[in-house]
Amino acid sequence: MNLEAQWIVGFVDGEGCFHIGIARHADATTGYQVLPELTVVQHKRDVQLLHALKAHFECGVVRRNHGDRMCWRVRRLEHLAERILPFFDRHSLKTSKRLDYLSFRRVILMMREGVHLEVEGLAKIRAIAERMNRGRTACDDTDMRESSPS
Amino acid sequence: MNLEAQWIVGFVDGEGCFHIGIARHADATTGYQVLPELTVVQHKRDVQLLHALKAHFECGVVRRNHGDRMCWRVRRLEHLAERILPFFDRHSLKTSKRLDYLSFRRVILMMREGVHLEVEGLAKIRAIAERMNRGRTACDDTDMRESSPS
Repeated sequence: MNLEAQWIVGFVDGEGCFHIGIARHADATTGYQVLPELTVVQHKRDVQLLHALKAHFECGVVRRNHGDRMCWRVRRLEHLAERILPFFDRHSLKTSKRLDYLSFRRVILMMREGVHLEVEGLAKIRAIAERMNRGRTACDDTDMRESSPS
Repeated sequence: MNLEAQWIVGFVDGEGCFHIGIARHADATTGYQVLPELTVVQHKRDVQLLHALKAHFECGVVRRNHGDRMCWRVRRLEHLAERILPFFDRHSLKTSKRLDYLSFRRVILMMREGVHLEVEGLAKIRAIAERMNRGRTACDDTDMRESSPS
């Protein structure tokens, strides 16, 4: 299935979630790891669209979310920075999800510089993350986060 | 705000709801009225997008849904038949919501022929309506239906 750029933007405006997780991680210098992810959740009957998104961006995984719901999820920093950001930089989101995207983008770029590996940088990222997704429906799969990138 | 057709399709694939309500109505020959509607619900912070949809299609109303949620809603049969159907006939939905759209379309065309005004026709429409939106999140505003078209 071929997806047009504007269809993807409209669908992600509706169903996408840009999220920055921060989880305890004993091996990290700061004691925490930063876990950015883009997810799109759909009923399993529309799983072919999640596979189409995966194919379009050539990254991420399609897996079960809750019950009958599946998700496409991108977590690998390189893929977020090199495949997801260029797309949404070029094709702007139209809802207020764009503000979350811009915060998400900022964190990705900071992580590419290694900012999250230092206590001060982590605090900055935490402050950004805490202001995201406010008042919106919470991302559907944050409780399913694992430490493995995908 | 200018909306591209494919953005609208993607957004409605995510957030739209095609619904056929059937409500008791003492004045109708059959005792019931058939109430088709397209709705798109958003948090009030994105109400400008609902107004943009209204402006794009030149029909419907933007009003409060629940709490902080607003909706764009089209109920007038003429507008559904002459503005909504031609758009989604030309620009196909990509999710399984397309199946609901096709049922919705069928009912609209039947109503244009007056089929819903007879007991037998109403039964056909009821059978179609009962197979719609199964297994998907229920439409958000069906409890707010009123008899006035908009």
